[in-house]
Amino acid sequence: VSLVLYELRGAGDRRYSLFSWRTRMALRHKGLDARFEPVLLHDKAAIAFSGGKTVPVLRDGDAVVRDSWAIAEHLERRYPDCPTLFGGEIGRGVTHVLNAWVDRTVVPLAAPLIVADIHDRIDPAARAHFRSGMERFMGGPLEKVQAGRDTGVERCRKAVDPARAAMRTQAFLAGPAPAYADYALFSVFQWARIMSSFPLLAPDDPLGSWRERMLDLYDGLAREHAAAGEREGVPA
Amino acid sequence: VSLVLYELRGAGDRRYSLFSWRTRMALRHKGLDARFEPVLLHDKAAIAFSGGKTVPVLRDGDAVVRDSWAIAEHLERRYPDCPTLFGGEIGRGVTHVLNAWVDRTVVPLAAPLIVADIHDRIDPAARAHFRSGMERFMGGPLEKVQAGRDTGVERCRKAVDPARAAMRTQAFLAGPAPAYADYALFSVFQWARIMSSFPLLAPDDPLGSWRERMLDLYDGLAREHAAAGEREGVPA
Repeated sequence: VSLVLYELRGAGDRRYSLFSWRTRMALRHKGLDARFEPVLLHDKAAIAFSGGKTVPVLRDGDAVVRDSWAIAEHLERRYPDCPTLFGGEIGRGVTHVLNAWVDRTVVPLAAPLIVADIHDRIDPAARAHFRSGMERFMGGPLEKVQAGRDTGVERCRKAVDPARAAMRTQAFLAGPAPAYADYALFSVFQWARIMSSFPLLAPDDPLGSWRERMLDLYDGLAREHAAAGEREGVPA
Repeated sequence: VSLVLYELRGAGDRRYSLFSWRTRMALRHKGLDARFEPVLLHDKAAIAFSGGKTVPVLRDGDAVVRDSWAIAEHLERRYPDCPTLFGGEIGRGVTHVLNAWVDRTVVPLAAPLIVADIHDRIDPAARAHFRSGMERFMGGPLEKVQAGRDTGVERCRKAVDPARAAMRTQAFLAGPAPAYADYALFSVFQWARIMSSFPLLAPDDPLGSWRERMLDLYDGLAREHAAAGEREGVPA
């Protein structure tokens, strides 16, 4: 295997990086094998070779690529004969906008709902680092930020309305079959699923069946990773 | 010409329908000639043949299609040899999500900023109809809704951040060249431009240059329609 993906490892070996999940799904979409190299959040030395401080980092032979979007573009360019992530130039451009929509609209609304839960499920050695960075970013104690989630969740659910609307006539964001746009949005739900028992979607949300289809993909690639509530021993 | 597009006509023959602008741009993208049939907002009889009460309606030979998204899909299906609006199945799916994002996120934030201006620039005969419908929808007098726009505009500007982000590395939402995704978002700016002098974007907004590129397309197709402030005689 010449492909290595560096991704975050939480307590109990949880692979919880939101952005790395986009890459994990993209690799399988392309039918590429990779080795997964877990990194602790505060261990910047482990990925210093990338020139950056964040995962995912993909090592592909001699190439080192960081940032999930850059990795997706790299995979599409380097492996043009494998199934396409974007479906061509227009699809790439529009998926880029959609990817930015997830990062700038959905993630900022979802993160406060589960941020204390994430803290409790990352490696104990990384928690102080996580807490100080996130509390600065969120402007208050994680537990306090998360305490407002029963009302905050409504804005988050509303924000994904465009996906819900399209889903009335198509099975995936990318049409009849999944592609990178789906992985971008799904990564938020997978991140939340692995790190928190809090329901991002209401039980009757029509997006729930899309999420189930995403969990089913590639022989249950995403479902294989236990949901927070399914765990024993380590904090559920 | 066998193609006829039914669209709204405002005071001074302004062609102000947000959704019809998507179709106008899409028709030119495909290199299709059409005749434009202006309709007053309250004149439901003029489009009763479509089975619906809203424009745009496209008559294409024997086919009658209503709803701008359905029209875009129709054009793509019916004219596969003309330049593509979506770039294939994935592009179509993702553009559908983006189209829904414009409708469900951007339009609801932009409309309150210009709703009284729109009222003042539609045909006098349609104003009572517009006012009663919009005041019910917006929950108050149009002038009062619009009065909060100096603060409300910030949310609207923030909402288009995903487009702004993608524009750092690409000239159009659809990549190096414009496609339907661009027409979907641009329609909001064109609607606002024709009906109001209020600046949806700050003068230094990087999206401004994208909007200029959109106005330049197809020999200035959109720019040919005067901006609200450029008019004389009828209310500017």
